[in-house]
Amino acid sequence: MADERVAQEAVAARHGNTRRRPRVVIVGGGFAGIHAARSLAHLDVDVTLVDRRNHHLFQPLLYQVALAVLSPADIAQPIRTILRQQKNAEVLMDEVVGIDTGARVVSLASGARIAYDYLALATGATHSYFGHEDWAPLAPGLKTVEDAIEIRRRVLLAFELAERQKVEFGWHPPLNFVVIGGGPTGVELAGAITDIAQLYMRHDFRHIQPDKSRVLLLDGGHRILTAYPEDLSAKAEATLKRLGVEVHTGTQVTGVGPGWVEANGQRIDAAVTLWAAGVQASPLGKMLGVPPKVNFDRRGCVRVDGRLNPPGLPDVFVLGDLAHFEQDGHQVPGVAQPAMQMGDYVGKAVAADLAQKPRPVFRYFDKGDMATIGRMSAVADVKWPFRAHMSGLSAWFTWLTVHIFFLIGFRNRLSVLANWMWTYFTFTRGARLITGDQRLPGWQEQTANRKESGKAAD
Amino acid sequence: MADERVAQEAVAARHGNTRRRPRVVIVGGGFAGIHAARSLAHLDVDVTLVDRRNHHLFQPLLYQVALAVLSPADIAQPIRTILRQQKNAEVLMDEVVGIDTGARVVSLASGARIAYDYLALATGATHSYFGHEDWAPLAPGLKTVEDAIEIRRRVLLAFELAERQKVEFGWHPPLNFVVIGGGPTGVELAGAITDIAQLYMRHDFRHIQPDKSRVLLLDGGHRILTAYPEDLSAKAEATLKRLGVEVHTGTQVTGVGPGWVEANGQRIDAAVTLWAAGVQASPLGKMLGVPPKVNFDRRGCVRVDGRLNPPGLPDVFVLGDLAHFEQDGHQVPGVAQPAMQMGDYVGKAVAADLAQKPRPVFRYFDKGDMATIGRMSAVADVKWPFRAHMSGLSAWFTWLTVHIFFLIGFRNRLSVLANWMWTYFTFTRGARLITGDQRLPGWQEQTANRKESGKAAD
Repeated sequence: MADERVAQEAVAARHGNTRRRPRVVIVGGGFAGIHAARSLAHLDVDVTLVDRRNHHLFQPLLYQVALAVLSPADIAQPIRTILRQQKNAEVLMDEVVGIDTGARVVSLASGARIAYDYLALATGATHSYFGHEDWAPLAPGLKTVEDAIEIRRRVLLAFELAERQKVEFGWHPPLNFVVIGGGPTGVELAGAITDIAQLYMRHDFRHIQPDKSRVLLLDGGHRILTAYPEDLSAKAEATLKRLGVEVHTGTQVTGVGPGWVEANGQRIDAAVTLWAAGVQASPLGKMLGVPPKVNFDRRGCVRVDGRLNPPGLPDVFVLGDLAHFEQDGHQVPGVAQPAMQMGDYVGKAVAADLAQKPRPVFRYFDKGDMATIGRMSAVADVKWPFRAHMSGLSAWFTWLTVHIFFLIGFRNRLSVLANWMWTYFTFTRGARLITGDQRLPGWQEQTANRKESGKAAD
Repeated sequence: MADERVAQEAVAARHGNTRRRPRVVIVGGGFAGIHAARSLAHLDVDVTLVDRRNHHLFQPLLYQVALAVLSPADIAQPIRTILRQQKNAEVLMDEVVGIDTGARVVSLASGARIAYDYLALATGATHSYFGHEDWAPLAPGLKTVEDAIEIRRRVLLAFELAERQKVEFGWHPPLNFVVIGGGPTGVELAGAITDIAQLYMRHDFRHIQPDKSRVLLLDGGHRILTAYPEDLSAKAEATLKRLGVEVHTGTQVTGVGPGWVEANGQRIDAAVTLWAAGVQASPLGKMLGVPPKVNFDRRGCVRVDGRLNPPGLPDVFVLGDLAHFEQDGHQVPGVAQPAMQMGDYVGKAVAADLAQKPRPVFRYFDKGDMATIGRMSAVADVKWPFRAHMSGLSAWFTWLTVHIFFLIGFRNRLSVLANWMWTYFTFTRGARLITGDQRLPGWQEQTANRKESGKAAD
């Protein structure tokens, strides 16, 4: 501790910071980062939150932006607006390019260097293509607003291109939507695309039959939603199949190309391919690496102890999806709940330090998980306030209630509710905008091949 | 007429179209195009509407997307959804690349060719940089959803970059917003940026003072809003000045560069430059050129007669901003009202033909014009149901009422209203999202220069 104090004072002196008020630097404005900032509101500290984006995203609803129910602004809010009232907090839109855990300094892309007394790292995770980075432009994943807009563009454009081509040739490439990965995101995407094709698009086209399009959900494991109990994952699969989704478990994707996916050695036509398979931790964890020795799991998550510190770094907290935290022998999953609770813990730990008391131990309180499947169905593994496996409409209403509840305090709940109600009761999608480029990978090639081979009618 | 019939039958035969039902091809899904399509709903014709975008845009509110009040989807709707119920209409998302007025065929980018009996051309107008196309990336204009998102990105990013830099150097380049062009769009943009800086951003930043930023409105003429009566344009200027906008009339812009504008030979720092000065007609009018001879005005608009036909082309209607139509010695302006009425006229003209009666003459019924200036002020040149020059709050309420009225039938009115109310009563912008690139032209250079010159404090 004596060493730490000395180091801390040295940093303070170097940066002209002669106040005794400690500075907490939070990197990342997701659930963990925002909760960490708020947990420090009433403590005698200065808080600097750094994010390369200006907005916090309500990630659990991002798939609804991708599938044209909600607008990006419905689920995003400027981080500095969220923290507007918190007088001890400032927000910087910048990117962290280096962390010196010895000198306790964070370097930013703009060139600024910020000294910290505490660092909370909450930069989350992104897609992993398992070394096939060339698949990324062919099969976008869903993490950012830009990702969601890109998925929306591709899905909507596929129908438009098919209609255009049917008029010209009387034929169009098969409208197959292939979703790779049977976790919650894959299930939500597959269910929602089926809804779009079967319910919302049906009356808008004159030449194609949107309800004849196919949605394929591919997963390498022996069941979808592996994080859920077996009965719920079976129910989810049954529901998807009833909606018309073709669920293929035990299916390894071995290739992704423009307009096709190769799975178990077989090539499948794909007008649109979406990636919901792999997750890897943000590279920022790696910046903690030397010195001292930090342990990472295979996804690049930072292994933390019961106080959310990497070994040997008591002034660094790693939170949310970036943290590998084990409780009762199981890794806590990378979802919103634990991220929020980890963020809240930072305030408790710092408060204990300021009061010169021992820090409490973090414990994740698991209320359960849920995932939606299409328009009015869901599965929920409820653990609090009672234990239950729910599925179907009741689970969907639970999902809706919980999400509206969590959107409270979040300004967009009114327009989100309006958009939801409109969507569910009128069968009209609210945000069916195609912006940007008007091509799809592989589409032009297929059309050209077809033209050459001289086939004319479907 | 006999010649036309023969040509028409020839076209029909060539395309295997042996039905007698005439086909009306409408190019463009703006106000004119949508109204034209709807005006044909109950006639015994087939309607094909072609637009390179999938959505109709409520253009009068586009500046509110650019300035973070509304989301794009609030003012945009898929064209095929608007025409979903109209059984004689189909929609193609495609681009017209050629028009053969002799053979009566429209060629599309996809390769398709569509034969028409009537053609309604309503592809509108875009920005003109008066031959300085290199200014376009430095000073974006406002016509499309992408334009609006780009302007939003730049305006919001300027504040973020200033805050970031103030933290690093204690200094930032001046937060000047330069709007070039004092027409309705320029006035609306200038007023709205002032609102953002002075009302909405004030409490969100810790280091910069957003209310100290400057908004400059430059116009080459001797007054702003030249299309309005002199007293209203004087009132608009006075209102802008009271808001804090620096209005510079008689100011010729002679250069636009990264981070600066040169006006009347003087260089002005500009964190963000916006273009609201010039308008030019869509190039599609030119495709009508040969044969026969079509007349264009200096903006490239097609001169049309009292039946909205270019000379010698009775089966072609040119509508909306693309048309140059004179009434009582004045050109009808390129705004929403005449576009809608021109669209409606197409149905009347075609109905007359089908009934073998002479076509009526088009007459524009002018209800007046209005433009907003900031949060709760506007000017209105009302001509119907009474004549009045209104300004201030009463004009703003008139503006609000009219726009809500026109949004009726347009599905997004509920969320638009919710967003407006939220914005006006809470001083929080609804859609403050920065997406895409995180640089501003000229900003990095200014910062670098400053670093080299060694100045450190503001």
